[in-house]
Amino acid sequence: MDYQKQLQVYFAEADENCLPGLSVDCVIFGFSNNQLKVLLLRWKDTEEWGLPGGFIYKNESVDVAAQRILKERTGINKLFLQQFHTFGDDVRYNREEVSRKLHWPDPSTRRWPNRTVSIGYFALVDFSKVTPTADFLTDECRWWDVENLPSLLFDHNHVVEVALKTLRVQLSWQPVGYNLLPEKFTMPELQRLYETILNRPLDPRNFSKKMRALGIIERLEEQRRGGAYKSPYLFRFDKEKYKKALKEGNLAFT
Amino acid sequence: MDYQKQLQVYFAEADENCLPGLSVDCVIFGFSNNQLKVLLLRWKDTEEWGLPGGFIYKNESVDVAAQRILKERTGINKLFLQQFHTFGDDVRYNREEVSRKLHWPDPSTRRWPNRTVSIGYFALVDFSKVTPTADFLTDECRWWDVENLPSLLFDHNHVVEVALKTLRVQLSWQPVGYNLLPEKFTMPELQRLYETILNRPLDPRNFSKKMRALGIIERLEEQRRGGAYKSPYLFRFDKEKYKKALKEGNLAFT
Repeated sequence: MDYQKQLQVYFAEADENCLPGLSVDCVIFGFSNNQLKVLLLRWKDTEEWGLPGGFIYKNESVDVAAQRILKERTGINKLFLQQFHTFGDDVRYNREEVSRKLHWPDPSTRRWPNRTVSIGYFALVDFSKVTPTADFLTDECRWWDVENLPSLLFDHNHVVEVALKTLRVQLSWQPVGYNLLPEKFTMPELQRLYETILNRPLDPRNFSKKMRALGIIERLEEQRRGGAYKSPYLFRFDKEKYKKALKEGNLAFT
Repeated sequence: MDYQKQLQVYFAEADENCLPGLSVDCVIFGFSNNQLKVLLLRWKDTEEWGLPGGFIYKNESVDVAAQRILKERTGINKLFLQQFHTFGDDVRYNREEVSRKLHWPDPSTRRWPNRTVSIGYFALVDFSKVTPTADFLTDECRWWDVENLPSLLFDHNHVVEVALKTLRVQLSWQPVGYNLLPEKFTMPELQRLYETILNRPLDPRNFSKKMRALGIIERLEEQRRGGAYKSPYLFRFDKEKYKKALKEGNLAFT
């Protein structure tokens, strides 16, 4: 079946079996090489990038749809996806322009409403445990530095911005490093992650002091070897203490 | 026009002119007599209470719809409404049961989809400045203590719970008293508000110390007179300092 035919089947199925005028978009954050990254898809036969997204079946909860869409579109399974915002502007993007760019069927031939409200989900993942895979709609699925995103399809640059803002607020009451970092990490790595999310430099001495004062990370005897500089110590989150502190609301980082 | 006819016109208009299968629900919090309250509507000719809600016009942003719905259904104008969660479970409530209770037209006679996804908004208001008014769909619009809500229509008890949870989290990085309290208030009043939202008792001496350390409230020379006990001092928020601290993220209350 050629791609045009596949697209027609895909949209006809959405028109028939999905909640009309609703979609889900997923912002998947990872952290690697001291960079906060986001997972993007390049649509088939184009240079156009966007977030993984899709539609909700009529008998499916929106949360379950988000998990399914992420799995189908990137191969990633069972992430902790967190709903963060619903994008409901009356004009979110130019529908005809997007359809043209992506070689989609003419919107006027579809039963779908004239606008789509999208429910945004985000997740923080351990970069090293994820193998992004393109699906039949796309040629490529890969990580991009948050600080150097291309101009995205739909209103997806805005969606990423709102997800980042949510992450920034969340930093003030829960340490996000827990999900984004590998099991063992150095203090400069953790600091760099915080700096990227907060979008401002932090003082290393203060940062280390504050983080350790939270009582949820422990310094290991191991050091990270092989770098050009003095080998830094490795740390890891103490999951029990972390859970207890989160429950008691004692994790503010200001 | 009798009520049955009015209802039919109302739903026919929604089927024709609104985004199918979507609604908005508003949780309006106020604080009075040392109680956190929420605004509820009693549907005409019933003893059934629910949140103010409604539908979104096809060419209207969801944010604008939320403002309009609140105005139409309660008479309250230009509140700062904050989107907090979209309720997208596949079965949120028993549709036939709700229609029967509210004397609504049989759902099978409508063009509306079989389920409705609802976008939740909340607002914090100065209780004394609001005059709730019932609309043509309802007999009564009034405040209820959050701690003593009746069994609500739809999934509205759950919606209020999620709004409260959001408020609790928000307390850790922004003082909600600013919107909920009248201009001048006593420290015990502020503490009672925090206790209601956090759902746990707080130590008066610690509370006062922490709140004053944030540097955003000032003690006035005035005292609240007329009570049975020692007259407590009045306080007010310093709006300039509040805005500055919020921008700098220095308002954690833990």
